[in-house]
Amino acid sequence: MTTNFYAPPAAFRDQYVVLPEDEAHHAFRVLRVQPGDEIIVVDGEGGWHRVRLEHVDRRTVAGTAVETRRGVGEPAYELTVGMALLKNRGRFETLLEKAVEMGVGAVVPLQTERTEKERIKETRAHNILVAAMKQSGRSRLTQLGEPCTVEEILELRAYDLVLICHEQEGPEHALLTVLRRHAGAGRILVLVGPEGGFTDAEVATVRAAGGHAVSLGPRRLRAETAALTAAAAVMLAHP
Amino acid sequence: MTTNFYAPPAAFRDQYVVLPEDEAHHAFRVLRVQPGDEIIVVDGEGGWHRVRLEHVDRRTVAGTAVETRRGVGEPAYELTVGMALLKNRGRFETLLEKAVEMGVGAVVPLQTERTEKERIKETRAHNILVAAMKQSGRSRLTQLGEPCTVEEILELRAYDLVLICHEQEGPEHALLTVLRRHAGAGRILVLVGPEGGFTDAEVATVRAAGGHAVSLGPRRLRAETAALTAAAAVMLAHP
Repeated sequence: MTTNFYAPPAAFRDQYVVLPEDEAHHAFRVLRVQPGDEIIVVDGEGGWHRVRLEHVDRRTVAGTAVETRRGVGEPAYELTVGMALLKNRGRFETLLEKAVEMGVGAVVPLQTERTEKERIKETRAHNILVAAMKQSGRSRLTQLGEPCTVEEILELRAYDLVLICHEQEGPEHALLTVLRRHAGAGRILVLVGPEGGFTDAEVATVRAAGGHAVSLGPRRLRAETAALTAAAAVMLAHP
Repeated sequence: MTTNFYAPPAAFRDQYVVLPEDEAHHAFRVLRVQPGDEIIVVDGEGGWHRVRLEHVDRRTVAGTAVETRRGVGEPAYELTVGMALLKNRGRFETLLEKAVEMGVGAVVPLQTERTEKERIKETRAHNILVAAMKQSGRSRLTQLGEPCTVEEILELRAYDLVLICHEQEGPEHALLTVLRRHAGAGRILVLVGPEGGFTDAEVATVRAAGGHAVSLGPRRLRAETAALTAAAAVMLAHP
């Protein structure tokens, strides 16, 4: 049984955990778990638990954590991806799933000067994030932030390294080169613009805050492709 | 007007080009081109043409190439991605689109020992490849190969560097490290396995052919995520 289960911290009382309804349904109906079986339950906040099941019926699947670890499947860095919202919801949802697999800590929809206003389906997004967390073996749920501007995301928290993807000439601006130059950075923010790119004012704001403009190469990448490329680079640069 | 158009070499007679029907429809109905307008037409084989339109009506959009270049938008390397077929067609199609943007030269569906038999919708796949080529500013159409085995893909052509994604311990197997060690490689093959991974026999076959097993990090990546990660790494390592 390789599927992990998800139960938020509120589902735990000390070592005893009662799976949420949909997880219990999957365990009971699809995987046909039995009392005595062991399953892996992650709490979305870095907790990883090997749980021995005690109660199994079609309403309740519950048991006791016999082993607990912290941060299983989590990277050593904290990557926040700020990305202009996409008109195409499917593309944004693809990004969310892959971001989880690639170890992204938070995705924040950016309201840039050239972004059209779009809505996110919160419940769908949450379900995608949970499914990808379980599938990829992570224990921390990737956060989906509230939409904010470039200025706001810079003030959201402290970062060791801020990168804004923006066409740049010169090898010193290549993403891998900049990542290597800041190899110790733990808290990283990557900003990806909309189809029309960031405005000069937005790039200037990031630079004034100590951020670096980086190039992802000569081709036109869709926003979600650029975000995935950056997330992959950060992941691979931290082996 | 930032959209490129696609016309295969057969649509050209010397410098004169007649757009294929669907491209002509888009140009006439959606973009409302006029005689005298200039458009960019790529031929999918590395040809990039600035075309001055001469005939525009609802049946025919045609004109003369006034400037021709070779290899616009194309990377300096040739990357072939061999990937186990996916049950989920949408995921495979996402991979195709992103592979084009990332500069992949060919995608070859792999029949591995742990792959289930799946079919590709050829016409849909072709349309995705063409649309992504036009959108990303490339001039060469990413090839979709015939399904083949690991042994067969190794003999399909000569490669300077063969990588097989396979869980590996040790930093010397990290993808970026191996790419740096073979920085001059121009013809690269990356093999990505199915959910259950490659068999030891398949990995041994690749190693016997001089290939290298590489690690994409500690998390479980879906096949298409692994393929995109590898394509992004090759792209970023060749700035």
